[in-house]
Amino acid sequence: MAIIIKKFGGTSLSDLDHIKNAALRVKEAVEAGSRPVVVVSAMGGVTGQLLGNLKHRNLGADPAESDVVLSAGEQVSAGTFALALKGMGLKARSFMGWQVPIITSDKAGEAQIREIPPEALKKSIKYGEIPVIAGFQGVTEAGRITTLGRGGSDITAVALAAALKAERCDIYTDVPGIYTTDPNLVSTAYKLDTISYQEVLELAAVGARVMHSRAVAMALRFGVTIQVLTSYENRPGTLIVKEKDLTERRIISGIACSDNEAKISIIGIRDEPGAVAAIFKPLAEAGISVDMIVQDVSKDGGLADVTFTVDKDLLDRTLKLIKGSREKTGFKDLISDRNVIKLTVVGLGMAGQAGVAQTMFTALGEKGINIQAISATDIKISVLVQEKHQKEALKSLHAAYGLDKR
Amino acid sequence: MAIIIKKFGGTSLSDLDHIKNAALRVKEAVEAGSRPVVVVSAMGGVTGQLLGNLKHRNLGADPAESDVVLSAGEQVSAGTFALALKGMGLKARSFMGWQVPIITSDKAGEAQIREIPPEALKKSIKYGEIPVIAGFQGVTEAGRITTLGRGGSDITAVALAAALKAERCDIYTDVPGIYTTDPNLVSTAYKLDTISYQEVLELAAVGARVMHSRAVAMALRFGVTIQVLTSYENRPGTLIVKEKDLTERRIISGIACSDNEAKISIIGIRDEPGAVAAIFKPLAEAGISVDMIVQDVSKDGGLADVTFTVDKDLLDRTLKLIKGSREKTGFKDLISDRNVIKLTVVGLGMAGQAGVAQTMFTALGEKGINIQAISATDIKISVLVQEKHQKEALKSLHAAYGLDKR
Repeated sequence: MAIIIKKFGGTSLSDLDHIKNAALRVKEAVEAGSRPVVVVSAMGGVTGQLLGNLKHRNLGADPAESDVVLSAGEQVSAGTFALALKGMGLKARSFMGWQVPIITSDKAGEAQIREIPPEALKKSIKYGEIPVIAGFQGVTEAGRITTLGRGGSDITAVALAAALKAERCDIYTDVPGIYTTDPNLVSTAYKLDTISYQEVLELAAVGARVMHSRAVAMALRFGVTIQVLTSYENRPGTLIVKEKDLTERRIISGIACSDNEAKISIIGIRDEPGAVAAIFKPLAEAGISVDMIVQDVSKDGGLADVTFTVDKDLLDRTLKLIKGSREKTGFKDLISDRNVIKLTVVGLGMAGQAGVAQTMFTALGEKGINIQAISATDIKISVLVQEKHQKEALKSLHAAYGLDKR
Repeated sequence: MAIIIKKFGGTSLSDLDHIKNAALRVKEAVEAGSRPVVVVSAMGGVTGQLLGNLKHRNLGADPAESDVVLSAGEQVSAGTFALALKGMGLKARSFMGWQVPIITSDKAGEAQIREIPPEALKKSIKYGEIPVIAGFQGVTEAGRITTLGRGGSDITAVALAAALKAERCDIYTDVPGIYTTDPNLVSTAYKLDTISYQEVLELAAVGARVMHSRAVAMALRFGVTIQVLTSYENRPGTLIVKEKDLTERRIISGIACSDNEAKISIIGIRDEPGAVAAIFKPLAEAGISVDMIVQDVSKDGGLADVTFTVDKDLLDRTLKLIKGSREKTGFKDLISDRNVIKLTVVGLGMAGQAGVAQTMFTALGEKGINIQAISATDIKISVLVQEKHQKEALKSLHAAYGLDKR
């Protein structure tokens, strides 16, 4: 019988009713003839509470001990989930990271999984039990508790799928799957049956709340098929697969919208070698990533303007750093704008296709939406536009790429 | 340097301010030249919350998985306590039961400690760290998490004191030590400097909130010196020691008062062999302990009355069982009274001494307090009186046994 990993996130475990509902999904899998292996996050809010308490009291200074505290959240949900399964008459058993064991590096707070010896879980499965594994946590060779950092439970799930040669890794969340775009903004948006790893990676990179990119990258590396689906009802979600396994050929698979951008324009920089580099140097040193850089000839003769974006919450710090280097760089003016959004179209089908960008520019142009900056890879194009155009821009792009007529 | 175990209960860890205060006690011990090893309970209320959640949702049916959930409480406090110590500039490291390891039997929910290999803790101490051990929890030979049942963290502390050959085991609580009687009821009550294991066991048996008797019995067996003291300030508490190490010779060491008793009188039982036994049989079968049994000749000729006590919360069940057997036992009447208390005087010094009981009866008699039942061992006498006499009875006994003039 095929092993299927079933990972439930915090929103699927936010209280005991949600947990019972999630357990029902596992029971259905058993009845359908598969062998589920469950991975759980902390119950919604619990990790945040634990972390908040520590931070609030300035107690979070030691990552190793913070990990001990934080991992208790997944311990509670694993035990509770096993109890819920047993309450439904199923055999189940919880496993903490150290019990599997999920061996990690010793970098507390963001440990990397090194190895998962599959023997203990296989024995449990053979014994007819449903193993319920506490996600997000592992153990070092020396026996210390670690946590895996952001997206940690997704990573646990994918790594277990690889270690147990699972048929599939189901990632349960509070939405039915991956959509062509946000259905709250575009009524014709629909759930994709399949999408490729690369597309999901691009979508995750621009902030689409799908799956953490570390977990998707790991799934790609180990060839783990992922299904993103809701825990609230029993129906198929979206499969993340290799390009050859896509069920539909599309130019564009998804359109994402990020409101976490802020635009900065530096006006009147000397147009000479090294001038722009001198502006970005202090930002790089401060670990601030810049995106969507556009350089223009300034209206002032012999000078240049540079426009770029940073994360919204880094805007103030970035402006301060740029102002601090003004004496050296000698620019004339500095303008910033928080009211911008980044629209990104993603699709394997656009690689090597002419006209994909043109479709985008035409669609937005027809609506009178001005494009403030552009960046692109071979399978995605991002544009920066005014925030007020969000809904209209998404709608027109969704139609222009033929996603309306499914 | 001498190892001293320092165990902090839930009231000493109820929030992060309390934890920092407890950590201060540990720092003082380091500064005084000893090597503290910390044992922590769950933060006040946490275990109850976890358990309550499970019970409330009918999820507590599997003790092994309940143990996984419950033990997370001590995991959080151990990590948090280690962080607090580190925040004070001390080296510290948390240990879960499985990391020590504290090997137990596999009886989930009430596991017995089998063995504590001391190597890991000794290494940590040698390395200059303060080990902070999650109390109440252990691990089976097969690697499953267990909990030790009521008084579990005290048991962890005493067992560690034995395993590490500690000089002393400090049990921190919210009172300054063990008192001659409840200072809230008798203003002349004072904190004892020393008391014997046997006396503490008797006091624990009658519900004095001192320490769990399982932990005291273990301390007696392994010769572990215990100090009961407050975590709120830095001053000595009460030492629990062997008889030969008592610093003071007293007839009576303490007077306890339990309001958890209910009195039952069965009136008019046939005064013949086996009649009384027939009444107690269904209670024994139901696992209900009876105490303070008194048999009287009934005012009705040829019949007997029997009076005894049970735990207050078992009264209704007990009455039902007795009524259920009325056809067989054929008693005339059944009377119960919840408004009673049990006063117990405890003292090694009373063994073999004449007049100790007489002092008690005289003192209560002079105040017009009627004694409804009596029970005794060689080092304690308990009497049952009306609840309304509580304060007056305690005061008069405290004076009568010379405890007022310290």
